[in-house]
Parts: sequence; C-alpha cells; structure tokens
Amino acid sequence: MTTKLPARSENFSDWYNQIVLKAELADYAPVRGCMVVRPYGWALWENIQSALDQRFKETGHVNAAFPLFIPMSFLEKEKEHVEGFSPELAVVTVGGGEKLEEPLVVRPTSETVIGAMYSKWIKSYRDLPLLINQWGNVVRWEMRTKLFLRTLEFYWQEGHTAHATSEEAQEETLRMLDVYTDFAINEAAVPVVPGKKSESEKFAGAVSSYTIEAMMGDTRALQSATSHFLGQNFAKAFDIQYLDSNNQLQYVWTTSWGLSTRFIGAIIMTHGDDQGLVLPPRLAPLQVVIVPIYRNEDERAKVLPVVETVRESLVDFRIHVDDRQEVTPGFKFNDWEMRGVPLRIEIGPKDVAQGTFTLARRDVVGKRGKSQVGQNGLAIKVTEVLTDIQESLYQRALEFRNSNIHEPKNFIEFSEVVKRGWAFSWWCGDSECETRIKEDTRATTRCVPLDQPEREGRCIYCDKVAKERVYFARAY
Amino acid sequence: MTTKLPARSENFSDWYNQIVLKAELADYAPVRGCMVVRPYGWALWENIQSALDQRFKETGHVNAAFPLFIPMSFLEKEKEHVEGFSPELAVVTVGGGEKLEEPLVVRPTSETVIGAMYSKWIKSYRDLPLLINQWGNVVRWEMRTKLFLRTLEFYWQEGHTAHATSEEAQEETLRMLDVYTDFAINEAAVPVVPGKKSESEKFAGAVSSYTIEAMMGDTRALQSATSHFLGQNFAKAFDIQYLDSNNQLQYVWTTSWGLSTRFIGAIIMTHGDDQGLVLPPRLAPLQVVIVPIYRNEDERAKVLPVVETVRESLVDFRIHVDDRQEVTPGFKFNDWEMRGVPLRIEIGPKDVAQGTFTLARRDVVGKRGKSQVGQNGLAIKVTEVLTDIQESLYQRALEFRNSNIHEPKNFIEFSEVVKRGWAFSWWCGDSECETRIKEDTRATTRCVPLDQPEREGRCIYCDKVAKERVYFARAY
Repeated sequence: MTTKLPARSENFSDWYNQIVLKAELADYAPVRGCMVVRPYGWALWENIQSALDQRFKETGHVNAAFPLFIPMSFLEKEKEHVEGFSPELAVVTVGGGEKLEEPLVVRPTSETVIGAMYSKWIKSYRDLPLLINQWGNVVRWEMRTKLFLRTLEFYWQEGHTAHATSEEAQEETLRMLDVYTDFAINEAAVPVVPGKKSESEKFAGAVSSYTIEAMMGDTRALQSATSHFLGQNFAKAFDIQYLDSNNQLQYVWTTSWGLSTRFIGAIIMTHGDDQGLVLPPRLAPLQVVIVPIYRNEDERAKVLPVVETVRESLVDFRIHVDDRQEVTPGFKFNDWEMRGVPLRIEIGPKDVAQGTFTLARRDVVGKRGKSQVGQNGLAIKVTEVLTDIQESLYQRALEFRNSNIHEPKNFIEFSEVVKRGWAFSWWCGDSECETRIKEDTRATTRCVPLDQPEREGRCIYCDKVAKERVYFARAY
Repeated sequence: MTTKLPARSENFSDWYNQIVLKAELADYAPVRGCMVVRPYGWALWENIQSALDQRFKETGHVNAAFPLFIPMSFLEKEKEHVEGFSPELAVVTVGGGEKLEEPLVVRPTSETVIGAMYSKWIKSYRDLPLLINQWGNVVRWEMRTKLFLRTLEFYWQEGHTAHATSEEAQEETLRMLDVYTDFAINEAAVPVVPGKKSESEKFAGAVSSYTIEAMMGDTRALQSATSHFLGQNFAKAFDIQYLDSNNQLQYVWTTSWGLSTRFIGAIIMTHGDDQGLVLPPRLAPLQVVIVPIYRNEDERAKVLPVVETVRESLVDFRIHVDDRQEVTPGFKFNDWEMRGVPLRIEIGPKDVAQGTFTLARRDVVGKRGKSQVGQNGLAIKVTEVLTDIQESLYQRALEFRNSNIHEPKNFIEFSEVVKRGWAFSWWCGDSECETRIKEDTRATTRCVPLDQPEREGRCIYCDKVAKERVYFARAY
C-alpha cells in the first residue's frame, strides 16, 4: 500500500499484476501457476455468480455437481477433444498409496464425464431438453500464467445441455451467448462483441463456437465467455440416445458454455485507472465506503454518531465504515480508490455542523467527482449516483473500444492498426490467410459477428472474394 | 420409480442407497467411489450452504478460495497431520505431459496450504483475527464408499481462522460448534449432541476436536460436523507469526471447522421413512407441490386455472406444479412422497366446485395427514403447516434419539444396548479401554458432552474412577 502503482499507460502488464495483489483480489499460491482468490476477489466472484446464476435459472437451467476426476480413456473417445486438451492435463497416477490401473485426469472441462452421465439418464424425448449447469474448479496445465487471466486451476461455470433437435441446440447456444452479452454489458459494464469463432479458434470437439470479445485498456482483446454447439460429436462418443415420440432411437444434440474467473481480469483491465481498480457498482463487493474525518477525540465523538446514522440510512447498499485509527483519512481515500469502491462518503466536523457530507465518485478523479449532499433523501441520491457510475463506466468503455476499432484499407494499414487497436476487416475464411496474418502481425481472428453485410468484399490478406467481416486483434 | 423401495426396517442400508438414487439426489460417477450430485440433491446442498453461509457471515467470516493442489512437502510439515492423511491421498505426478519434480497432493483438507498463505499475510496484531471460510471440493481416497456418507471426492466448507491468543481461538472453536448445532437443529431438524472427541478420534494435527453427533434411523451415530482447536501446531509448522502491540513476535493460534455433503446423508437417515425421503421444509428444494386432478380435457380446463391462481398466491414458497400428463395423480403422489416434498396440494373438479383443496403433509402418512382448506388465507395456512412439519420432524427425531440412548449398568448390558442404540456411560479416559470396547462391541466414543456432572463414576469397562460420561455408539 505504501508503494505506488506503476502507471497504467507505461506498463500495463505490471500495472495489472500490482492491482491484483495490492487490492487483495488474489495472490500467488505455493504451486506454480495456481492462485489464491482472496476474500475481496472472491466477494466480486460471488456477485458475478449470483448475477449469472439468476439468468441461468430464468432460462430454465438447474445446477448440479459432476466429479473432478475423469478416466483418461473418456477423453480419448472424442478425437478432437483429446487432441486439444491432452497437452494441458494434470494426471493423478497414485491413489491411497497405490499406483492406479487407469490414470485419472483432473477435469480440464467436463463434456466427457457429463456425456457419460447423460447417456445413463436420458431415455426418452420426455427427458429433453436436459439443462444443467455446474459451478466449480477445473485445471489446465498452462505454461505462461497470469493471475485470473490464465492459471492452472481456475473457477468457472460450465453449462451442458442436451436437446432433441439440432435447431434447439443451436438456439440454446445462441441464447446463452445472449445471456453472457447481457451480463457483461448490464452487470459488468463491459462492452462486448458477440460472434462466431473461426475454425482454428473453436473449442476442441465443437461444431461451432461462439464468444463474447472485450477490448482491454491496452486495446488487446479478451475472450470473455464462450458458448459451443457440439452437434452430435459427444452424443456419438458417449452414446447419448433417446426414444423419440415415434419410438425411434435418436442421438441427442448437445451444447456447452462457460464463463470463468478470467472475467475478473476483464473487469480490471476494462475499467481500472492509474489510481487502481474501478468496479462497476452492480458487482462491487463494497458499493459505498464511509470515511469519518477528525483530528482529535472530541471531533471523533461528534462525527461518529452521524456516521452511524448515515450508515443506517444506507443499509440496502453494500457499505463499510472505515474507522481505522492507525491511518490518516488521506491514506484511506487512496486505499479505497485503489480497491475500486464506486462511492466514498466523507464526514467531518464541518459536515456535521452543516448537516451535509461529501460524496466522491470513483469514476471521476479529483474535484469534479465530488459533490455535497444532505441527509435528506440520501439513499435516493446514492442510488442515482451509483446508477450513473454504472452507466458512465459502460459509455466510457464503449467509446474507448469504438475509437480503437479500425477499418484498414489494405494489409499494410492492417499491420499498423493492430499494434494499437482492433481491425474490422473482410476475410476470405481460409485458415491459411488466418495463420499468415497471425505470423505477420500477432493478430488473430477474434470473432465473426452474427450480422454480416449483404454485399461481398475482398480479403484483407489475399484479396480473394470474402463474405465475412471479422474482428482481428492481438489477444490475451 | 416403478420398483418399490426396500422397507427401511428390513434393510436400512439398501433403503438408503435406493432413496439416494430414486429421489435423484445423487448417482455413481464413472470413477470408483466418486459421486455425481444431481440437480435435486444439489439444490438441497445450496439451501444448506445458504443457511450456513449466512451464519458464518453474521459471525464475522468471509469467503475465499485456496488452491486444489498442495505440494507433498507441505503435508509433511505437521507430523500428526501427514500420518493421518497420507494413506488417503490422491497424487498428481504428471502435468502438461511431464513428470513433476515434486508430486502434488489433491487437497484432503487445507490447513497446510492456508497456513502457508497466512504466514505471508499476517504481519501484525491488527491483522488478527483472520476469519476465512472456503466452499469447495476435497479428495480422500476411501476404500469403502457410500453416496454422500463417504466418497472419494466430496463437497464441504472449511473455515480456517487465526487468533492472537489461545483463549480467542478456543472461543472460536466452540462458537462454530454452536453455529453447527444451531443449523442442525433449526434448519435441518436434526437433533445433535455437541461434544469433544477423544484423543484417538480427534483430527490429525488438532489439540482438541469437537463434533456434533446425530442418531440415524437405525440408531447408528453420524459425525455431522467438526470444529478443531489447532493450538500452535500449524502456526509453528508454517511459521505464522505476528508482531503484538509490544512489538514482540508471537505465533498465532488457529482453528478449523467443516461441514460436508455428508450432512445430506444425516437428513435422509434422520427423517426418511418407508415411502422415501422426508425433507425439513426450511431446506427442501421444493416446499410445496401442486397436483391437479382430472379425468378428461374438460375437467382439466376447469382445474388448471384454479391451480394457477393457487400457485400465484404461493410464490413466496419453493413451489412446483406437476402437470405431467403421461402419469396418473396416484403415481405423482408416490413420486413426490418419495422425493420428500413436505406439502402436497391436490386440486380436482370437486375442489374447484367447492372452493377448497386438499393439503397432504409428508410427515404424517395416510388420511391423518390430510386436511381441507379454502383459498382464503391459504399462504398463512401453508406457512403454519410447514412450520408445524419442521417442528414435528425435530420432535420426532428427538424422541427417537432419546428413547434409544441407554445408561447400561455394566459392560454386559453395554454390549447389548450398543447393538440397538447409544450408551451414555462413564469412561476413565484411557485409550486402551476405548480400543477394547471398540474391539468387543464395534462401538466407539462419539463425544464427551461439554457439561459433565460434578460427581465421579466408574468406567463402564475397567471400573476405575471416571470423571467423564461419554456417548458410545456404532457409527457411520
């Protein structure tokens, strides 16, 4: 807390790491690449969970828990799936002091083991659709790790659904993409572009993958959630069949979709500034902090009862009174700014005498973010300010993103713009062009937006006819 | 669903297994000893979590998440801890295709890794007490498994706290034992005996362990939650020190406490009957189910609008309308009884004509459990009935338990009564007596109640002077 954060504009990566540690969101675990999510970070995750879980239940899903361990042979049943995941597996080979006959994989994702259970549970068309979500931990053996963004173990939800028809499964895939988009925009104030992944970027085992892509403060892209249409790939690998209403045996169609603690990284890198974290009020663990101001015990005795009255009038908010006596008010201001609390209320002896307090908005630094208010209608005022902060954060991020999306005229321009933003360009759809673009510029296809123009264009790389316009960017 | 449950009185173990499967609480996972918690079971667990989490927060605790993987060397730092847990470990030896230099243990419990983090976080007396809880999964390589009661992977919460003094840590240990007792009695309607574990039964690494013990329907005991005073054992093993207000370096005092999905087993085996599950209303995923009754489309058209009106008047309850048309009302009655829904509302054409409905309580089988009510004040009536069911379940379980606790006069009587109940007997405290009693009768010391008589007695086994009266029972 005593050392200052690095400037965001000078060293974005270091700025990010320092915020995560200093705001006590997370810490490095003893095992390489693993993290500890500290109480402040976990409270943020609980708010994310709650906002998503409500949306999942409103769309007919229920929660369950599937096992951590998966027999190695299960992964091998779906060819692309095992190819995609086998380099990243953590493997249990010893249990209860004995070498295991078959090694167990610590789940990197649960399509296989859930497929095996669905094959047992689904008998008839009456059992469909089956709409289950799970909140849990998964492990992928990553080599280059960064807190929240890429860790060996991470926390997420994974939805797994089975349907009678391809159409229903595809609808579900897009429904959950919509749920993620709505969550990102309306809860996290993170503008996202929903779209389809290219063949090379899709999930191992999917027919098609969809994503929401967000632009971070350094203009790099972050894949923030994904939704996959799995066709009958897992249904066939795990023999998930049902009797239809004509008593014919049919394979189901499945989907899967997930959002992880990575999203906390998206929030940090979308809204944070040189002072530290800036949290959207709807997800912030603390929405309001009250800092009493006094120079001596006499003033303290006058200020604290008013602080208590104010706190009581604001119990509907997530609120905290910081009455630490070993640090100064100035230290507290910096501390809570660094932790991204959306609104601060300062109450000192003058305020008590005048019956007013100072509100300081986290999203507007300095005097412009301060205003004086009275006790009358305070809760309404606080609601208004928090709503305005939520909206302003979104608008600011949206403007930043839009001003950093470019439409380069040719590949030379393309190579320039992807150094400092995204390119929105025609692409022929050929994976060879995609690979070369990546090799030349480090920019990858982020997504193909669902709405495409009627007309055709020319591929930004090879100049052949192109039917799709695509977002390209350097990505996390 | 078509096959009947085994009678509870005839084969308690099989009855239990069948209920878990048929009520769709859980299923066997592909890996030996692992379980899948199905949506109905997970909803029950979510209600347990919510009731406990509220109590944890009210007592000043916050949640966080610590890593799944623990370096093997960490476990070895506390001698008794590693001796206790090493036979049960699942070990990751391969990560990302490479053999690991140091094997990683899949956490069986997290004292060690949390100790390592606390050592990093705790600097000064101002950082104390540190009161953190975690909800998560752990793995213990059990040989004989049973759904919910003993599985390789299970779900639980584990609280870990650090304090400046021994007294504060001991207070915390008992405070959390109280929280568990209150939860068991008031949320789950499970009467429990709180008390201290004997030396041989305590947690590996604890100074003293406390437990709440419940009597199952077959009179066997189930350890339902534990709270441990860890002294400075882990503080010294992991060098968790703080500067006190005199600037002296001191070791902290720690506690840990946990309740797991095993508690679902306690609920099943405390309240269940020959018809199946009986769930306490406060935790039941569904509190009320409405079964519309009709013989034809005409009656259905009359009944359903009334069903909808009733449902709307009861939205504050966890309620479900079962309008499946492929099964009969009788089938539905059995089905929801088997799933333990506390209250059923039957609405048929006659009811619609008369403006009344039938309420059927799950806890009272047959006609005695049925009553007629009108739409007026229905929500109040339902609240009353659910409250009464909650209370009745507790009273019934309490009476059953009390009538099966015996005070045998000698060891011959003791050996008899522990075949069909618990013995509450004087014990000299010698672990040799304890071992012999176990060998002779399969009964173990369950707990030493905190309130002990002033007088002394004679050990039920060796007849030496005994200061404590102890519960003995065969246990799960």
